Amino acid sequence: MLDLSNWDESTNMKPAGMPNRAEVVALTAGLRQKLISSEEFADLLAAAADEELTPMQHANLRVAGYAHKNALAIPADLLKESKRVYSDCEVTWQQARPNNDWSSVLPKLEHAIGIAIQISQCLGETFDLDPYDALMNQYEPGIQQASVDGMFADIREFLVNAVPKVEAAQQAPTRMAGIFKADDQLALAEICMQELGFDFGRGRLDQSAHPFSCGNAFDARITTRLSQDDFSESLFAVFHETGHARYTQNQPSEWVLQFAGEPTGMAVHESQSLFMEMQVCRSDAFLEFVYPLVEEHLRPTDDTTGWSLDNFRRAVRFVNRGLIRVYADEMTYPFHILLRYALEKQLCKGELAVKDIPDAWNLHMRDMLGVDTRGNYQDGCMQDIHWFAGLFGYFPCYLLGAIFAAQLQEACIHKIGEQTERIRQGDFSAISTWLAENIHAQGSLMEGEQLIQSVTGSEMSARSYISHLKRRYVDA
Amino acid sequence: MLDLSNWDESTNMKPAGMPNRAEVVALTAGLRQKLISSEEFADLLAAAADEELTPMQHANLRVAGYAHKNALAIPADLLKESKRVYSDCEVTWQQARPNNDWSSVLPKLEHAIGIAIQISQCLGETFDLDPYDALMNQYEPGIQQASVDGMFADIREFLVNAVPKVEAAQQAPTRMAGIFKADDQLALAEICMQELGFDFGRGRLDQSAHPFSCGNAFDARITTRLSQDDFSESLFAVFHETGHARYTQNQPSEWVLQFAGEPTGMAVHESQSLFMEMQVCRSDAFLEFVYPLVEEHLRPTDDTTGWSLDNFRRAVRFVNRGLIRVYADEMTYPFHILLRYALEKQLCKGELAVKDIPDAWNLHMRDMLGVDTRGNYQDGCMQDIHWFAGLFGYFPCYLLGAIFAAQLQEACIHKIGEQTERIRQGDFSAISTWLAENIHAQGSLMEGEQLIQSVTGSEMSARSYISHLKRRYVDA
Repeated sequence: MLDLSNWDESTNMKPAGMPNRAEVVALTAGLRQKLISSEEFADLLAAAADEELTPMQHANLRVAGYAHKNALAIPADLLKESKRVYSDCEVTWQQARPNNDWSSVLPKLEHAIGIAIQISQCLGETFDLDPYDALMNQYEPGIQQASVDGMFADIREFLVNAVPKVEAAQQAPTRMAGIFKADDQLALAEICMQELGFDFGRGRLDQSAHPFSCGNAFDARITTRLSQDDFSESLFAVFHETGHARYTQNQPSEWVLQFAGEPTGMAVHESQSLFMEMQVCRSDAFLEFVYPLVEEHLRPTDDTTGWSLDNFRRAVRFVNRGLIRVYADEMTYPFHILLRYALEKQLCKGELAVKDIPDAWNLHMRDMLGVDTRGNYQDGCMQDIHWFAGLFGYFPCYLLGAIFAAQLQEACIHKIGEQTERIRQGDFSAISTWLAENIHAQGSLMEGEQLIQSVTGSEMSARSYISHLKRRYVDA
Repeated sequence: MLDLSNWDESTNMKPAGMPNRAEVVALTAGLRQKLISSEEFADLLAAAADEELTPMQHANLRVAGYAHKNALAIPADLLKESKRVYSDCEVTWQQARPNNDWSSVLPKLEHAIGIAIQISQCLGETFDLDPYDALMNQYEPGIQQASVDGMFADIREFLVNAVPKVEAAQQAPTRMAGIFKADDQLALAEICMQELGFDFGRGRLDQSAHPFSCGNAFDARITTRLSQDDFSESLFAVFHETGHARYTQNQPSEWVLQFAGEPTGMAVHESQSLFMEMQVCRSDAFLEFVYPLVEEHLRPTDDTTGWSLDNFRRAVRFVNRGLIRVYADEMTYPFHILLRYALEKQLCKGELAVKDIPDAWNLHMRDMLGVDTRGNYQDGCMQDIHWFAGLFGYFPCYLLGAIFAAQLQEACIHKIGEQTERIRQGDFSAISTWLAENIHAQGSLMEGEQLIQSVTGSEMSARSYISHLKRRYVDA
């Protein structure tokens, strides 16, 4: 219900409905919290632990137990306070960002981060974890800085050297001419989704301000944002969300209302969207497959400037240092996460004051991307909603997803053979089946790291991801 | 949330999502039932009763108290069983109706009506009411056969004489030529809704298989069903649902999540849709106002057969005895309700066996409308979902709504003067304000009968309604 409510808010509801809706959502979330933290729930968990359990039942108990402990970890007063403070901070941010107004949001953010640190300490105590690890575990259970730090350092080392080389060698794309009608873009998107295995009998595509995916195995929905001047941002968002949606549509349907019937974590979820978007849809073979479809739906008859497969490939592969994470290309995107991860850890440990975020942001951006963000808060530390809405420990999932996707791609090829020719023909069946069986249908049977290890036969590592970037961008 | 879920099922969700959605809805409804019937809830009610209360707080306590007693009246096992049996019966009906297959749904309906009778007895005992009165009270609190019987008998007596006279005097309309595009019909509908005071900043219009309205003061939504061959059925459905939606949009917003902030009953709700559809939108003045708009949006350029204001008026006023309630005209519609009301009472008292419904149906249809329904179950006793879904005691609300609407219309004219000229100019402001203040903004401050009495200064009576029909159809 909360998932549906969120979808409705982003696609159909008029803004005037929001305050009342927010209250209903808070009441509903409060009821859920009360149920999950109840003694009755604890008794059910204890009774189930004494039973003979199948592996999936065992997983169900594991995830339910985590949810129960998590609900009890945070004192009711602190939880209530956090919702108020986060909501207040988010609203202030919404208004302050367009005005580049850091000073008005600063006190609210200080309050919000103070609360987040308190919560991280409660969670750390309950789960006997470092506080920041405990925050990350809310989104990807089991993940720890001990393993993330090394992988992220490897990626940084590679990129700092590789990006300038790629930039020097690449040729800039020309804008593909045209004014692209919403209906044409949506028709193309739906055809692509179908080709990629999205089941429209159990899902929908709609428009919203920011692309997202939601739902369950019986009803998976994605959205995209359309621009009449640029079709490719929207199209690749559709590919990305289709990866999420296929994960959702292939969840074990007999477990749909149970804890274990949910995707195991947000890094694994992101691995599925990035597998689709980056591993499959930005590959040479896929671009060759999809380009004629794009031409058929969107190429103007008068001005065809920029309309060639080569230029299309250059456009969707162009490496371009920018300030904004969500607009970043595949090569520079990781820098944006490395920056946020570093700052979150420092904030959480009290090694960075909230007021010093802009300076720290600028230093990282200068060191990694060589861009200057001084004074530009709205495209700097005010660009993402996450911190202002109380989301701490989420950012690493984006890059972990890219790492997992590359590991899975290697394992997939190893298992079912090179798929380049099939992708070129528009046949994604072998890949789809392999992912559905090995990842999607597993639900929360295993935690993410264990799942990746079990499917790939290798430890979690950035090696495959770095090889992938090297192959696509450096050796190309 | 349940309201939103229902809207989503009818407008957006693919059928494959239904089984899982139904389970989520059942779980949510169960949680609500548990909360409302809890001792904690009872204690809160008792504590509030000792306070100094404003009239609205007092009403809130009244409605909450009714909900609490209602939730306790039905044993949990019986309630659970009823949901299973009603759902099973409804599914069987869905499949059996297109095949005119009465015999396969009969045992399920016997089971469903048996359960409904048990529930009516539980409710009757709890509220110290006749069981059928207790059923009606679930939809329109306070209403009783003692007053309904007399009004319905008056209506029957009038109509049995009047309908043949009207039929003899009227002229049949010609079909208005055209194939009407969905976009054109929706554009016209939205303009009309705006004219009638629907606030699109707090609501939406969508399409669904059956028109309905839902939502709250901050987010009111209506739907319509479009046909490319006939625009007027859809357009008048939009007028009808706009009446509901204006009631919803004008509820007291500071009470939005409270019991007293809800419309007071379904008969009053129906009075608002019928005030709009019948009193306002089928009036001569409104038809004169709206006809140019209809022409502008829908009149074909080639064949304009039937396109005149006179013919349009004839079409939306034509009295035509038919088998189907939802397609009935204003004059014959009441017969359909009188029939169902009579049968429900007999079924509830055990004076009619379920297997004898088709014969009883045919007798009533023959006596009142002179039509033969023998052997035609799908357009006879199988036409409405209500009984098959366990809805007993609801039907009278439709006709009570028409009665209330006519009483309100008289009171409104008495208070603010004749509005004919203003309606002809498209100025509905005085009527809108009067209804908003006197009915909509009252929420559940009073029960329906009391509200009508307080606003009109008269007892509930069919007199105004009969005068209205006489004026429009007999004296015309």
